[in-house]
Amino acid sequence: MSDDTLLERRHRLLGAGAPLFYDRPLHLVRGEGVRVWDSDGRIYLDAYNNVPHVGHCHPHVVEALADQAGRLNLSTRYLDERILDYGEALTGTFDESLSRVSLTCTGTEASELALRIARACTGNDGVIVTDFCYHGNSAVVAGLCTAFEMPEGIDPRVRTIRVPEADDDADLAASEVEAAIASLTEAGMRPAAIFFDTIFATEGMPAVPPGYVERAVALTRAAGGLYIADEVQPGLGRTGAAMWGHQLYDAVPDLVTLGKPLGNGHPLAGVVARPALIDGFAAKAMYFNTFGGNPVSCAAGHAVLEVIERESLMENARRVGEHLRTGLAALAQRHAMIGAPRGRGFFAGVPFLADGDPARPAPAAAKAAVNGMRERGVLISRTGRHDHVLKIRPPMPFSAADADQLLAALDETLESLEQPA
Amino acid sequence: MSDDTLLERRHRLLGAGAPLFYDRPLHLVRGEGVRVWDSDGRIYLDAYNNVPHVGHCHPHVVEALADQAGRLNLSTRYLDERILDYGEALTGTFDESLSRVSLTCTGTEASELALRIARACTGNDGVIVTDFCYHGNSAVVAGLCTAFEMPEGIDPRVRTIRVPEADDDADLAASEVEAAIASLTEAGMRPAAIFFDTIFATEGMPAVPPGYVERAVALTRAAGGLYIADEVQPGLGRTGAAMWGHQLYDAVPDLVTLGKPLGNGHPLAGVVARPALIDGFAAKAMYFNTFGGNPVSCAAGHAVLEVIERESLMENARRVGEHLRTGLAALAQRHAMIGAPRGRGFFAGVPFLADGDPARPAPAAAKAAVNGMRERGVLISRTGRHDHVLKIRPPMPFSAADADQLLAALDETLESLEQPA
Repeated sequence: MSDDTLLERRHRLLGAGAPLFYDRPLHLVRGEGVRVWDSDGRIYLDAYNNVPHVGHCHPHVVEALADQAGRLNLSTRYLDERILDYGEALTGTFDESLSRVSLTCTGTEASELALRIARACTGNDGVIVTDFCYHGNSAVVAGLCTAFEMPEGIDPRVRTIRVPEADDDADLAASEVEAAIASLTEAGMRPAAIFFDTIFATEGMPAVPPGYVERAVALTRAAGGLYIADEVQPGLGRTGAAMWGHQLYDAVPDLVTLGKPLGNGHPLAGVVARPALIDGFAAKAMYFNTFGGNPVSCAAGHAVLEVIERESLMENARRVGEHLRTGLAALAQRHAMIGAPRGRGFFAGVPFLADGDPARPAPAAAKAAVNGMRERGVLISRTGRHDHVLKIRPPMPFSAADADQLLAALDETLESLEQPA
Repeated sequence: MSDDTLLERRHRLLGAGAPLFYDRPLHLVRGEGVRVWDSDGRIYLDAYNNVPHVGHCHPHVVEALADQAGRLNLSTRYLDERILDYGEALTGTFDESLSRVSLTCTGTEASELALRIARACTGNDGVIVTDFCYHGNSAVVAGLCTAFEMPEGIDPRVRTIRVPEADDDADLAASEVEAAIASLTEAGMRPAAIFFDTIFATEGMPAVPPGYVERAVALTRAAGGLYIADEVQPGLGRTGAAMWGHQLYDAVPDLVTLGKPLGNGHPLAGVVARPALIDGFAAKAMYFNTFGGNPVSCAAGHAVLEVIERESLMENARRVGEHLRTGLAALAQRHAMIGAPRGRGFFAGVPFLADGDPARPAPAAAKAAVNGMRERGVLISRTGRHDHVLKIRPPMPFSAADADQLLAALDETLESLEQPA
């Protein structure tokens, strides 16, 4: 079946508004490791997808999934060892104060649950978020989404702060938290939580100044609010420096939301929290998630943790991530249209700038580069408040040779973009 | 590992407030067809779980899941035939006006999306629900949940109506919808939607009077609102009379929410809707669900549809459901503590009553019966506004012999409950 026919069927079924990548959509049929195949048999290096965290169709995960699906798949209303084995292994990677877990199916459900817990346990309503964030797609979570315009608008209980860049003053930047709290107070509210994606992925991966996160959290706590760390992007060792993004700072969250990479594609997500918060919420609300924590999901999640450990994928992200960033920095020396690389480990950003000026983002060039890279067999995307930052976020078994392939393709792409039209 | 040790580990990991079935929790390790095995090797007839819709661990579903998990598992941002094949088969079971689908992972996400669409497309805020309903666990959906007390309380944009019993007057009952609309108007609002679980499962499965649903929907539409049919409980042929519960009435919904049984345990859910609503929402909101509609979920969902067809499971629900209800009615003749059975197909309710008086529900006896049935190797639960209605909702391959086993166990259980203590 031709891709045009597929696209026509898709528009009829899903509507033309359902988001698709690329000017010419990509029809993929197979994945293995860090590579995917399209319907014409062409192979692409996947340097974008974080959902297949330990590699596309990793046999250990597929086997665990299939094996448990053939045994039993029921809910947490029955006793089951799978969720205990997985949950203990998972919480074992956190600070010991974060020992409870409530499993859900999606990051949105995790954001919803964390917010419900924070509001129910603090008795407060306000939420502080960054001014270019995304935490999910439910009505309440859309109401604190500042990266996309939503029909609900920003919830009146939400206050936004600007994420600082590396060379900003940490205390000055954190004073925006004080202003947010003052604004909530003026409206008769107090903060229930501050909500941080700990690598600020949607914001374009700025390296925030040392001490900033800690100071923002301390200010929120002093006003009665909790610290929710959103680990949907940085989680599971992606930064190469720690298993979780929040561990890069000196502040332990009260609630952590987990999502995307957790089940290597299987819908698995959750909230890890201090016991008092999980128990306090359970005393006030009947919360049950039908599919959350089912034994098949737990088998998949556990297999992912095992592969990360066995294949030393966090160390790989650190080592190859550095190699990648060194290469990107070298490209930035040679190509005026890109700036110094951002991010950490296997989450790299490359800003496109007009005449190398950080104040002049160049989203059209970034878009052309994403499409140019696809034509050269490498999948990436872009992000940031001006959509001008290349988003490089490969599955974790990405090798130095894969990084070299990406760098060569980017070099070529940049050269072709520099040619006079 | 002993069940006591498991329970202790569970309390430490999930908290003691995580819902568990039974006074003595059940530790299940295996499922096949309509039977499950506990850790001691004891076999139970599963007459409760609707999630393993076509039977526990159905080999066709497990195979489809494992096969696709080994090929590719990415998101709907790439072209994929799987979602088209499945989505077309799925929407093919609906009225032709309901031709678009947006897949999610959970029923809660489906409720959220349907409400967001209804509010964005009508421009209205009000929601009309029944006075003992459950549609999911996000903050907004909890705010219209009338069956459980939630810390958020009932959302001020929500109005509740009482579900009538079979012998109530349909027009009189529907006049509660008029009152709800009037109350919204008084508060400066109009209805965005009326939200019906079309077999009123949580409400205790009353058989509403003919014409009631149609009249309630017409009144809502006249005031500018949409009709959302929640098919999480009645869907996929469970009533034996139609593929979807709303097809038992003469009113086609604008939006339909799907959940639990869709993936036979795999987290799969969604919204089926009129094209104008999906497209109207897409024009206003960036909606993307990372795991929703991934090819593995679609493979599982499609396999479920195939098994329902191949094994004539809807016809089985009709035929065996009638047999079951005849048997339950006969038991009601002989045991004063239960009333006439309710429901349809494979969703049966048996009310426990003090002295056979419909006005005097007997939840303690119903609870004792649920535990007594478990001791006799049959899994059921209870529901209804007084928690006094046995909830019998087996996987769809439940046979007449299985029904007889359930009836014999219930007969014995009722006899033992009738013995003077």
